[in-house]
Amino acid sequence: MLGNFTYCNPTKLYFGKDALNGLNEELPKYGKNVLLVYGGGSIKKNGIYDKVIAILKANGKNVFEDGGVMPNPTNVKLNEGIERARAAKADLILAVGGGSVCDYAKAVSVSVNCKDDAWDKYFIRFEDVTCDIIPVGCVLTMVGTGSEMNGGSVITNHEQKLKIGHVFGDNVFPKFSVLNPEFTFTLPKYQMIAGIYDIMSHILEQYFSGTDDNTSDYISEGLLRSLIHSANVAVENPTDYEARSNIMWTATWALNTLVAKGKTTDWMVHMLGQAVGAYTDATHGMTLSAVSIPYYKYILPYGTTKFARFAVNVWGINPAGKTEKQTAYEGLDAMEKWMKKIGLVMNITELGATKEMLDGMVKSTLVYGGGYKVFDEKDIRAVLKASF
Amino acid sequence: MLGNFTYCNPTKLYFGKDALNGLNEELPKYGKNVLLVYGGGSIKKNGIYDKVIAILKANGKNVFEDGGVMPNPTNVKLNEGIERARAAKADLILAVGGGSVCDYAKAVSVSVNCKDDAWDKYFIRFEDVTCDIIPVGCVLTMVGTGSEMNGGSVITNHEQKLKIGHVFGDNVFPKFSVLNPEFTFTLPKYQMIAGIYDIMSHILEQYFSGTDDNTSDYISEGLLRSLIHSANVAVENPTDYEARSNIMWTATWALNTLVAKGKTTDWMVHMLGQAVGAYTDATHGMTLSAVSIPYYKYILPYGTTKFARFAVNVWGINPAGKTEKQTAYEGLDAMEKWMKKIGLVMNITELGATKEMLDGMVKSTLVYGGGYKVFDEKDIRAVLKASF
Repeated sequence: MLGNFTYCNPTKLYFGKDALNGLNEELPKYGKNVLLVYGGGSIKKNGIYDKVIAILKANGKNVFEDGGVMPNPTNVKLNEGIERARAAKADLILAVGGGSVCDYAKAVSVSVNCKDDAWDKYFIRFEDVTCDIIPVGCVLTMVGTGSEMNGGSVITNHEQKLKIGHVFGDNVFPKFSVLNPEFTFTLPKYQMIAGIYDIMSHILEQYFSGTDDNTSDYISEGLLRSLIHSANVAVENPTDYEARSNIMWTATWALNTLVAKGKTTDWMVHMLGQAVGAYTDATHGMTLSAVSIPYYKYILPYGTTKFARFAVNVWGINPAGKTEKQTAYEGLDAMEKWMKKIGLVMNITELGATKEMLDGMVKSTLVYGGGYKVFDEKDIRAVLKASF
Repeated sequence: MLGNFTYCNPTKLYFGKDALNGLNEELPKYGKNVLLVYGGGSIKKNGIYDKVIAILKANGKNVFEDGGVMPNPTNVKLNEGIERARAAKADLILAVGGGSVCDYAKAVSVSVNCKDDAWDKYFIRFEDVTCDIIPVGCVLTMVGTGSEMNGGSVITNHEQKLKIGHVFGDNVFPKFSVLNPEFTFTLPKYQMIAGIYDIMSHILEQYFSGTDDNTSDYISEGLLRSLIHSANVAVENPTDYEARSNIMWTATWALNTLVAKGKTTDWMVHMLGQAVGAYTDATHGMTLSAVSIPYYKYILPYGTTKFARFAVNVWGINPAGKTEKQTAYEGLDAMEKWMKKIGLVMNITELGATKEMLDGMVKSTLVYGGGYKVFDEKDIRAVLKASF
């Protein structure tokens, strides 16, 4: 555990088949006006909307709605949400949906009482929150982003062709989140496996960095092994409660700050994937899967020891009689084989990227962190080219 | 992840060589009167006491002292602490020491505003906290109990020959804890390895239970592998910062409720160890190590599959060509060998237990939980007899 750090994660989680009842404990803590934020309306089809409304009404809340949050929420939609929250004089923003809806709710929550343009302040200038925050609660219906227990928020600006994330402090973390694995059962397989890879990518972004031997990396290996095990079960049987619940719990712990503590991190797969997302509007997890193997093969020579450890501890590669490099490559091969097996998208062409977009995507790729290699434009171009 | 559960851990942790500076962020949140709780005075020798006093004074606090908390804090001392906290009109209890000091501080914190006898209310009748709590903060100088980030408190009653733990709710968790691995460097080796085994035992108590395949067990395996690795380094070189910091961080996560989520747990090693402790006043971690191998050999037939998994995933036993039972026993053999290697006490005779105490220890052993076998008096007697 290197350096000095603090840990504080105040989000209260309600987990399990009866988790929605947690709303009855939480709602009385807040004022009357609730802004209900959701996505394209699937929650109206699967009955979750009705259940939430009933609980809100039973708790005497005035419900204001802000639906239609898109999978990659935009700065334009964000400004609309800010206006709605102001008009509602919202005391609580309740996000019902996946990571995009939670991300969006947090972005609204820190902007309602600010005069600045939210996109410029938080996603271009990366400024701290300087105004009063509207508390956020989440009811999760998709799994992957970890947004239910962190301060992260990713917003897309189509005009500027930028998709950028800001990590807010623990005062912006959701006050509570409701995690019912059954709410994820109706998700299409494409979304489920995209979420699974989003989780894996979060762990790997924090794992593939640093040379020390700290506890966070051991926890990450445990999370990865749990994820692989339960993903294999869930792909065969999407309504296997235990598998879906393990995936949901792993997602939360993959990105709630724990496994980054005391170490350096990478995040270049997200930077590359977000650039692809800004041009294609493709599903987030698939933009990550499509660039991952080219990226990891590119950086392996700079972190061979860690990649060999990954091969042995996560993929069960037997290192006997092999060089460290051989073991390391066998690990990536095992990962690639597994990714194909569960049905992930393995190239950006399939996501709608064209060669004409390459220059633009290279420009849109921010360099943030960098685990075993700090990327320059040449590196970015090489990995994106290898991802077609 | 089975059943419904909630997760909330509000403790703020300050970790690293400069962690004590965190007091300057925390102290202004509380009133003027601070009850400083500590143990036998080692903090006066190693300079930590002076540093803490300087920070308290710089923050304008009135400092009241309650030193002399013993390694197994007693109900008699607890009553004394309650009186001191009342006399001080304490706004904050600051525990500076190891787990015993933190445990004691929490027990005081929930009793100051109660009229009931604290021992009877919390440790005999296991009642909920019904009165106002004095907030607690911790500066940790020993590692093992995890008391810095949980609601646990263990108190000993010599008259009744009972050592009993109560787990309070998250409102009793320390508001903040200061974790500086360097503060543990001066600890005698006996205390260090006792703490290491206390950590291991916490993880195993939560791991050896249940037949499902949940994420908590995978996280536990990661924590165990990190602990074994860093313990091996620390035993050779007690001032290896990275090893001591990993051990400190692992201790916190071994018993802050995380790895018990969504599963059943055991806790019989603690019940047996605490009975031994009530009779011998031996160091807590050593009472656990002295009964562990007899206990696990006794229950292995009831949970062979999990013990075989433990052998492979934690101790690296190759299961090829072996029965599940053979693999399982090889795991316990590897664990026993490792325990002896790092210098743990492997029998209760060495801790001062005599055959004359056996009947009393059997009676003092509470049955709480039970992972693969719910114990009766016969089972308790058999394991304690095998532990001499």
